[in-house]
Amino acid sequence: MAQNIYDDAAFFDGYGQFPRSRQGLAGAPEWPALRGMLPPLTGRRVLDLGSGFGAFCRWAVEQGAAEVVGIDLSERMIASARERGPGLPIRYERADLEAYAPAERAYDLIYSSLAVHYIADFDALCARVRDGLVPGGAFVFSMEHPIFATRADPEWVTDREGKRAFAITDYGREGERITSWVVDGVVKYHRKISTCVRALIDHDFAIDALNEWSPTEAEVAARPDLADEVVRPMLLLMAAHVAAPRTN
Amino acid sequence: MAQNIYDDAAFFDGYGQFPRSRQGLAGAPEWPALRGMLPPLTGRRVLDLGSGFGAFCRWAVEQGAAEVVGIDLSERMIASARERGPGLPIRYERADLEAYAPAERAYDLIYSSLAVHYIADFDALCARVRDGLVPGGAFVFSMEHPIFATRADPEWVTDREGKRAFAITDYGREGERITSWVVDGVVKYHRKISTCVRALIDHDFAIDALNEWSPTEAEVAARPDLADEVVRPMLLLMAAHVAAPRTN
Repeated sequence: MAQNIYDDAAFFDGYGQFPRSRQGLAGAPEWPALRGMLPPLTGRRVLDLGSGFGAFCRWAVEQGAAEVVGIDLSERMIASARERGPGLPIRYERADLEAYAPAERAYDLIYSSLAVHYIADFDALCARVRDGLVPGGAFVFSMEHPIFATRADPEWVTDREGKRAFAITDYGREGERITSWVVDGVVKYHRKISTCVRALIDHDFAIDALNEWSPTEAEVAARPDLADEVVRPMLLLMAAHVAAPRTN
Repeated sequence: MAQNIYDDAAFFDGYGQFPRSRQGLAGAPEWPALRGMLPPLTGRRVLDLGSGFGAFCRWAVEQGAAEVVGIDLSERMIASARERGPGLPIRYERADLEAYAPAERAYDLIYSSLAVHYIADFDALCARVRDGLVPGGAFVFSMEHPIFATRADPEWVTDREGKRAFAITDYGREGERITSWVVDGVVKYHRKISTCVRALIDHDFAIDALNEWSPTEAEVAARPDLADEVVRPMLLLMAAHVAAPRTN
């Protein structure tokens, strides 16, 4: 079972202070890029894995989705998501993504924002996501970029030119990392981009897009706090769709 | 036109001392992984972009390829490749990969080892490679991993735990890097994995595999000099095939 850090009171309070928690999608600088990877949602059935405060679920309703389901491990997150969108046609369900299996061929889009790096078995998740999608259905997700996730604790250094640099170690050693993020003892997993791509392809997905997200110069000029995102990427966005297995 | 560093006498002599130059494929630790990404070559037409000393071309002949063509910018490299495989049915041709266009639908496999990071316009290269392949034909190549290529000059640091770490900067700033490697002033290009994937998909390729190559623990035990490859990847291997453009 995945760690339920989001029901820890201290974590929940700290996490709630982040811009993306307070402002929703507008507080997530990668959102325009991630939105650009999504198929049209009008009339579509949408599942959000790790729905958090429900920002994406509410957006999907606005886009005219026919059905919107949000899955989260945290009771507090689900309660807060419901409070933020009272009366909206969204079904929230508490479940552990390490085991949760959507109904077969039930969705046109399965979305996940910054959740899959908490999952130990990404390969098994891809199999369940594939089974939950209709043929041609899309899996669009973001995760911590492995350059960021490979270190349990991020470390900045000064290079020989006096520039701010990011130290990486153990990129080739995939697996668990215990980090301090809001609180101590947060369990996450480092896996390479190539490992994610292999898991997707092994489970009949065709890759549509990768985005090792970094801001443009204009974005950094407008928001100088994003400068570190140019030094090293923190976020990886991916889009794939269920294709027929290759026969040739 | 790409820089012709390989016809520089000092570079050529220095480059010729590397294990992969002296021992061919056996001197390249990533070769078993790259070989595993190749289709069967019996009876196939094979093009090698940046054929160097010809090790892959000779291997393709051994595998029973029907036609083997090696392209290189360097006269010296081509001369040496011919000397290493006298009488073999390999056609070497001197050309600049920045402009070289294979005949349309002339090949079943286009291969390239550690050459594309010297090419300024990877997008245009993908278009020409696509045109040179039959439908379903494969493009299998290795390049410098962007974690390694993003710094003009690699820099190792010691992290707060006293471990050897690799400094990265400017990952989000793609483009030219002038580096010192064997000689000063070597021009290469940093591009993100996601940019390479986008170029391939934009030119009708389907992604078959990525490999951010790092050695296994057993490989490091046998060759301790490979330990740095676990800290940070230096090589990225990719395989794709020409697919019909997606219509849905």
